[in-house]
Amino acid sequence: MKRTSRDIRTSNRYQVLRQFIAHSPASRQELAAATGLSSATVATLVGELVELGLVTEVGFVDSGGGRPRGLVALNTEGGALVGVDIAETYVHVELFDLGLNVVARSEERVRPGARGPEEVVALVVAGVHAVTAELADGHRVLGVGVSVPGQVDREGGLSVYAPNWDWHDVPLLDALSGQLAHPLYLDNPLHACTAAELWFGAARGRSDAVVVNLGTGVGAGLALGGALHRGVSNSAGEWGHTTLVLDGRRCHCGGRGCVETYVGAPGIMRSLRELHPDSALSRSGDDQTAAIDALARAVADGDPVAVATLGHTARYLGAALANLVNLLNPEVIILSSWVAARLGEPLLDAVREAVARHALRRPLAATEIVLSPIPTDPVCLGAATFALEGALTHVRTPLARSRR
Amino acid sequence: MKRTSRDIRTSNRYQVLRQFIAHSPASRQELAAATGLSSATVATLVGELVELGLVTEVGFVDSGGGRPRGLVALNTEGGALVGVDIAETYVHVELFDLGLNVVARSEERVRPGARGPEEVVALVVAGVHAVTAELADGHRVLGVGVSVPGQVDREGGLSVYAPNWDWHDVPLLDALSGQLAHPLYLDNPLHACTAAELWFGAARGRSDAVVVNLGTGVGAGLALGGALHRGVSNSAGEWGHTTLVLDGRRCHCGGRGCVETYVGAPGIMRSLRELHPDSALSRSGDDQTAAIDALARAVADGDPVAVATLGHTARYLGAALANLVNLLNPEVIILSSWVAARLGEPLLDAVREAVARHALRRPLAATEIVLSPIPTDPVCLGAATFALEGALTHVRTPLARSRR
Repeated sequence: MKRTSRDIRTSNRYQVLRQFIAHSPASRQELAAATGLSSATVATLVGELVELGLVTEVGFVDSGGGRPRGLVALNTEGGALVGVDIAETYVHVELFDLGLNVVARSEERVRPGARGPEEVVALVVAGVHAVTAELADGHRVLGVGVSVPGQVDREGGLSVYAPNWDWHDVPLLDALSGQLAHPLYLDNPLHACTAAELWFGAARGRSDAVVVNLGTGVGAGLALGGALHRGVSNSAGEWGHTTLVLDGRRCHCGGRGCVETYVGAPGIMRSLRELHPDSALSRSGDDQTAAIDALARAVADGDPVAVATLGHTARYLGAALANLVNLLNPEVIILSSWVAARLGEPLLDAVREAVARHALRRPLAATEIVLSPIPTDPVCLGAATFALEGALTHVRTPLARSRR
Repeated sequence: MKRTSRDIRTSNRYQVLRQFIAHSPASRQELAAATGLSSATVATLVGELVELGLVTEVGFVDSGGGRPRGLVALNTEGGALVGVDIAETYVHVELFDLGLNVVARSEERVRPGARGPEEVVALVVAGVHAVTAELADGHRVLGVGVSVPGQVDREGGLSVYAPNWDWHDVPLLDALSGQLAHPLYLDNPLHACTAAELWFGAARGRSDAVVVNLGTGVGAGLALGGALHRGVSNSAGEWGHTTLVLDGRRCHCGGRGCVETYVGAPGIMRSLRELHPDSALSRSGDDQTAAIDALARAVADGDPVAVATLGHTARYLGAALANLVNLLNPEVIILSSWVAARLGEPLLDAVREAVARHALRRPLAATEIVLSPIPTDPVCLGAATFALEGALTHVRTPLARSRR
């Protein structure tokens, strides 16, 4: 529960920098108005960001009679950030400037037989080297954020449990830090996507948001009070393993009736096979992406089997999202990840109707449900954001320096 | 998302006063160590609390060679707080000193035919007058916190929806403020119980806690990051109306398979009647309290029907609590309200086992499940806490004053 002065300074720094990323250049007065922070606090924070080279003074603007106001802009060249998305079949690495624009990217395939920690670490290192190779001299890499699926111990830098590869307590950051000199930050894709929405997406400026990741696995990243809610052991968001149908479908987590078994990609395809075993759509083989793509195309064509499968999925997803509405009373629910992107508006429309059937009136009226507006890989973006947050957390303020 | 400087000052004030309520007297140095706030911030906050008369300087303590340290103590006589618990059948009113000790209490019955807003307002006014009548001259009432069941619009002072009485948009605070001169604060019992646990109970000092109210209705108050999570329209916590059994038992909210229909008092009695229609326990009539009391006694006596009913309930409750563990990854789950109090340790033991069957290993390992340690009516206590928080929020700091 302790929110220390240091936490508050860090969170204020995030707020001011987010504001610059959204609107640059800006005057200190505009920043104070937009963030609700006092002029004195904003002046201090801008001073820190200038000293770090993240923002720069760019001139003055007339203030209508008073003293001209100094304008400060994001220094997009002030440092580079790397985001790494380790997935089951690939390792994406992206290099960002400080405006979080993608400057370079690399994709390495994870070969089916090569899923041990050493192989994956080698792919990450190769990717980071590839994207940073062409950085001009003097361009600093502020940090590398790495996302790995499953349960992650952030402080310890461990992949505690990665179900797809059956990794247990793999010291990923230790292994990487032997080969990469940059500051490193580890978390999972759900938390990365949530950070991306907070900084750049549909959660920005919202008091409470839920980022629902619909992919092979599913989860709900919680952005409460403008910050990622990680929980006490960084495990928050395992909505995919909340029970929706007591004694329902078996789940790989050992439970039954978990949300994921109905609305994750394999769950959707299972519903299709159960409802319409003879449909061509249900004979799509093991490629989940191709199967969901085919389903999305068939929905667009008005195929009744596809439309019925979408409706069936929306019924489960709607009830599960209504649980989030009733429990958390968020301002917005953001549907993210590849299944949401591919099924798109038809899924969104069906889900909104289903949520309205299950949620209580007052929280329902307060909640918007939208598709993620982030056009790039949100996991790389969010992972890079962790590196940016890390750089802002470890700022040595004048006071901290004088104490040393 | 905006957490303003003012919010931060208020939250720091809460922290310091909570510390005084837990340990008084204390030196500023001890407060800084316990809260993580800087010495300068603590000195400012203590100054404000002294000026408000909530704490007083009480002497000095030797600091082992250095300057003697000033000791500050809670001034329990510095102001009184009133908590009002409006329930279906009664209106409890309690008067507290600043240590949140009960100084006086009143209980008024709500007559079955007299459940309109006017009647209830009259009972509240009578109760507040009764408990404040004997206050010595010069004892200030800092505020009156009022809890009313259901959905509440705090800012507007409205009972938006009270299902038991079918109230809609009743302007309760307006009606009360015509008859009571004190500052008034309105919220619901779930939020009140959660505030009580945060200030005085098992959530104090915990980073993330969930207060699970088990009564006629059920809910889950969220204490995240040391503060009550209210949601965007003050509706957060409606865990009783999250779906656990899709297409399960009908709920008065219009949904099916809601958690409340299995683990609220009427749900438990329904399970008993379904499982053991011939048992004497299932013929308990309409008095829920008496029925749950009888069940608790029969469990203590080892009655197999009662033990089976408890196990059945624990199975549903465990799955529903595991959902909270997996989604929120809290440090502690606190079972509160009268059903939890009466079924006590046997329920707790069975529930812990059931949660362990459903929750993911990592968040499970981080979560303690306990019974509420608060011995008095937590709703009155929490409502009084809202009045205390209100008094601390509206502090006019020296800076604010000088600006006027």
